Amino acid sequence: MYKVFGDMLSGNCYKIKLLMQFIDMPHQWVHVDILANETHTKEFKRMNPNARIPVVELDDGKYLWESNAILNYLAEGTEFLPQEKYERAKVLQWQFFEQYSHEPYIATARYINKYLGLPKEREAEYHAKQAGGHKALTVMEQHLAENRFFLGVNASIADISLYAYTHVAHEGGFDLSEYKNIQRWFKDFESIPGYVKMARENA
Amino acid sequence: MYKVFGDMLSGNCYKIKLLMQFIDMPHQWVHVDILANETHTKEFKRMNPNARIPVVELDDGKYLWESNAILNYLAEGTEFLPQEKYERAKVLQWQFFEQYSHEPYIATARYINKYLGLPKEREAEYHAKQAGGHKALTVMEQHLAENRFFLGVNASIADISLYAYTHVAHEGGFDLSEYKNIQRWFKDFESIPGYVKMARENA
Repeated sequence: MYKVFGDMLSGNCYKIKLLMQFIDMPHQWVHVDILANETHTKEFKRMNPNARIPVVELDDGKYLWESNAILNYLAEGTEFLPQEKYERAKVLQWQFFEQYSHEPYIATARYINKYLGLPKEREAEYHAKQAGGHKALTVMEQHLAENRFFLGVNASIADISLYAYTHVAHEGGFDLSEYKNIQRWFKDFESIPGYVKMARENA
Repeated sequence: MYKVFGDMLSGNCYKIKLLMQFIDMPHQWVHVDILANETHTKEFKRMNPNARIPVVELDDGKYLWESNAILNYLAEGTEFLPQEKYERAKVLQWQFFEQYSHEPYIATARYINKYLGLPKEREAEYHAKQAGGHKALTVMEQHLAENRFFLGVNASIADISLYAYTHVAHEGGFDLSEYKNIQRWFKDFESIPGYVKMARENA
């Protein structure tokens, strides 16, 4: 059985839980406390030298890290990862967009605000994150005006990757009320059988 | 024939050139000047709404963006992308590491220094990038102590992704002289048939 090392309140970890719920994959969840520096122990760095969650331990004892790499691994052969070459590349395109143009703004602003309590010395950084976050949200809003999910008709791991931090963007100070297509996409996504909310008790 | 919209001095674009050289793939290179805001025109944003290079136009007129997604698409079926599921996920793991934990430090410091000429108002940001960059380099150095290439014996697109900005890290103020395994890896990488230097005249 797969073992997931993570924190359900981290969007990157929540992604793994969502996919495992959607495809009904048995797993064990091991909570890791990042504020207590649990990713910086010798034991943890043996699993992931980059000292980040999530990490997945596979059945043969091998490890895999980076949330979106894990999603691609677990989704292989399921309806959440298309077989066709261009569609697979499009899934990756949106996942790299998420990690480079979305997460560093939206997730980081949320982290500074929600986890750290918006300390004075990080206020300027917090405010500087807003423009980049809205730029990413605008790209998403525009794409979702013409597509039910990111790859079209069916949900894929690209949606999982983008949903994780977008649906809690308000915790990073982003007002989503004007993003009508993103709101509509939230509803479609949340109606996928197996969906669970981002809460530690759902781990 | 594939059309690549990019700038050879951008590591993200150079990745595409390297792979195309290695697998001997005919293509047309269209230079895009980011400092002249050529990624922000209406025409460009029709190809990539996120207004970034590289973009690849496929034979059927479809577009693909995000350098690492493009690499996965183009490398399918070649020796630069393994077939085995765990190895493919490991390629992605290192590529997501590159985009999240490496590029934002090393490439951004280089951009501020080389493209913008280290303006006074970005000096603090430039210096703040150094710690994160060395953290990523340390993860790489440690991994390369036991592996010839990132996936082991053979070069893959994970090496291409990480080589692109690492080999010019000194342009962002990173002294690589102490990273002996990275130096060794540079030599192995640069001996792959088809290798070209990062220079506009090689586009």
